[in-house]
Amino acid sequence: MKNYKIQPSILPGFMELLPKEQQIFNDIVKKITTVYEENGCLPMDTPVIEKSEVLLAKTAGETEKQVYSFKRGSNDLTLRFDLTVPAARFVAQYFNELTFPFKRYQVGKVYRGERNQRGRYREFYQCDVDIIGSNKLSINNDALVISMVSKGFKSIGLKDYKFQISNRKILSSILKEIGVIEIAETMTLIDKYEKIGPEVFTKSLNELVGNEKSNFVNEVMNIKGSNDEIITKLKELELKGKELEVGIEELKKVRDMLSILGVEDDEYIINLQIIRGLDYYTGTVFETFLTGNESYGSICSGGRYDNLAQNYTDNILPGVGISIGLTRLFFVLKEMGFIDNYEIKRSVDYLIIPIGNTLKYCGELCRKLQDNGKKVEIYLEDDKLKKKLNYANKLGIPKVILIGEDEVASGEIKIKDMVSGNESVLNYNQII
Amino acid sequence: MKNYKIQPSILPGFMELLPKEQQIFNDIVKKITTVYEENGCLPMDTPVIEKSEVLLAKTAGETEKQVYSFKRGSNDLTLRFDLTVPAARFVAQYFNELTFPFKRYQVGKVYRGERNQRGRYREFYQCDVDIIGSNKLSINNDALVISMVSKGFKSIGLKDYKFQISNRKILSSILKEIGVIEIAETMTLIDKYEKIGPEVFTKSLNELVGNEKSNFVNEVMNIKGSNDEIITKLKELELKGKELEVGIEELKKVRDMLSILGVEDDEYIINLQIIRGLDYYTGTVFETFLTGNESYGSICSGGRYDNLAQNYTDNILPGVGISIGLTRLFFVLKEMGFIDNYEIKRSVDYLIIPIGNTLKYCGELCRKLQDNGKKVEIYLEDDKLKKKLNYANKLGIPKVILIGEDEVASGEIKIKDMVSGNESVLNYNQII
Repeated sequence: MKNYKIQPSILPGFMELLPKEQQIFNDIVKKITTVYEENGCLPMDTPVIEKSEVLLAKTAGETEKQVYSFKRGSNDLTLRFDLTVPAARFVAQYFNELTFPFKRYQVGKVYRGERNQRGRYREFYQCDVDIIGSNKLSINNDALVISMVSKGFKSIGLKDYKFQISNRKILSSILKEIGVIEIAETMTLIDKYEKIGPEVFTKSLNELVGNEKSNFVNEVMNIKGSNDEIITKLKELELKGKELEVGIEELKKVRDMLSILGVEDDEYIINLQIIRGLDYYTGTVFETFLTGNESYGSICSGGRYDNLAQNYTDNILPGVGISIGLTRLFFVLKEMGFIDNYEIKRSVDYLIIPIGNTLKYCGELCRKLQDNGKKVEIYLEDDKLKKKLNYANKLGIPKVILIGEDEVASGEIKIKDMVSGNESVLNYNQII
Repeated sequence: MKNYKIQPSILPGFMELLPKEQQIFNDIVKKITTVYEENGCLPMDTPVIEKSEVLLAKTAGETEKQVYSFKRGSNDLTLRFDLTVPAARFVAQYFNELTFPFKRYQVGKVYRGERNQRGRYREFYQCDVDIIGSNKLSINNDALVISMVSKGFKSIGLKDYKFQISNRKILSSILKEIGVIEIAETMTLIDKYEKIGPEVFTKSLNELVGNEKSNFVNEVMNIKGSNDEIITKLKELELKGKELEVGIEELKKVRDMLSILGVEDDEYIINLQIIRGLDYYTGTVFETFLTGNESYGSICSGGRYDNLAQNYTDNILPGVGISIGLTRLFFVLKEMGFIDNYEIKRSVDYLIIPIGNTLKYCGELCRKLQDNGKKVEIYLEDDKLKKKLNYANKLGIPKVILIGEDEVASGEIKIKDMVSGNESVLNYNQII
């Protein structure tokens, strides 16, 4: 055997949790996915590794630089960088075996070789819901996916979030209407608004489209008021393009449906600055920020796409998706102190501690308790009592049952409450 | 946009399930991990990608040929090929922050570039429990890990399995006692017994150790009888090495503890042919076969190791682990028809179908029902009624609530039972 030791460590940009935090992480995932299931979403699981030609069918240069690709034999392989592209491939591949509208959720790790910085990970969990229609999909689903995340957040007791919602059709048609030629560049610039700040933004926009158009765009982007007021002001704009009308109408329908589905007014704001890059989104787009921690970026984003799987099939598959960046969310929740105060159900009710030659009796007691729905662990090591009690203490096991030979003989069972320190004595039949 | 389509497909050797089967797969994972949690195991999650020097610290040539390794920048990266090596690294890395004995479970995908054949996958889920002690760990834990899998299998209604248990000390010390020099080679050969069959085995063993020793080994390996009888016969062997005594005593203790923990006699047999390769195992070893489907190989294996993390730390960390090959298990359960008959709890109780302009009312009804613990979906598409009912049918949603404008006006709610076809009418307050 080698004598030297290899330093046990993981790669930078990878998250790993100690058991207590892992329990909380898993509890969050479980609660959110339970909401998805109870709203009719079906589970999906796709490979972490796929053919590069499949995963990279649509990506532009920026994504390709970040992906983990490698060759194995003659195959070009890529680790998935999101769960949306695999979902598109999946729906195209199994089209005839799925029921539409197809509502699916998926939780899985994805990989991006991003620059390592706080809150950004190279391996991170996404938790996605997508609703995919065959040929058509009601705009109401755009509100439904947001409402599910709202319910999910509420189920974990999270309050300090705000959805920021827009519809890409609005700004892009306004740009068209006012005669901007450089629509793509302008949208990209608007997408960077938050990052570069209003001054740099305005200067760049002036240069790109001229001061007059720039002023108008800035004005529209900064319409303030309640969600209803923003929609009203958009309707009052002296512009009459069909696409603009559609965009505003869609936004209004999403807003109405959010109310119907019980998403409160203070959970979201309409923000026309939300663009979501230039990828597949075509209508509704949204991001989500944790109040006071906006600088870590969006922890939940998504939007509407007209045709999800066009690289793989001639079937027209419009959809809307929402993705929680679970790893980043967890990181920010830790920063906020939310995790420290997160309460989880204890997984074990009792620790049975055998003292002397009582293992057989302890085993039987354990089975009896478990058969009665209790969660029970036996301490199997031959240690001092103090160490045994310490184990229960450290792991937060609330009650300890001490079984010595006297207890076996008498049928009496001593239960020590680890919180109060009180001891109570029950007989064998009482406890089960 | 490109006009040609990329064939949507996944790599050979990767498993992907349709929603119905995925629900069953997830249910199996959930039930088994719930058993682990309720017996005091803590969750662990480690990166899929680790430094090659960490993951490959101990492996021999055979493993290295199968792993997925690649370079990124100046880093040599490897995808984990099991969950045991990461667990060893984890325990060494966070030693001071863990409570021992440390019981952890982990479910995750691992990667091995095996030859593609039925029931063997290149990406597959393992579901592991390991119990790791600091400096020492009671032999009773070897039985405990088996008992947890037994409970897990029972929780999913699986009966047709058999644990095959041995202790490696027994055969290896017998070989030593009878003067075999080529112990490693002989153990490797015994490990192949099942694969090559008794004839080829005996011929090879004769060549390796001579006929006399070969006969004796064959005799010991084929001791038959009940579990107690096998242990008794082993004790009666005219060999007296200390290690042999220890091995037999450990096996007996495991057998006794299995009884104490409620594992029935017909769930396992002692089989000295079980060796588990020449990797880290040092005492108890076991494999598990589905009765009648032994040819697909073991679906759950593991054993005892004296010092799990010796490549990473000077701390002595003995442990015992058990690993269910979930993907293979699922494959074999499908072959057996077990999956076809697997019952899962429906995730949705009601589908609300709006007819006409009743969406708002349907939304309120949905929320009321959900607030009362019901699982409810609204059909949001503007389709013909037949298509809406068909959606419920295909997804197995048991009850449909039809809400037309009449129902809104009257406050009466029509519920259609999709199984019996019966319709009942309740008023709004009755249903919630």
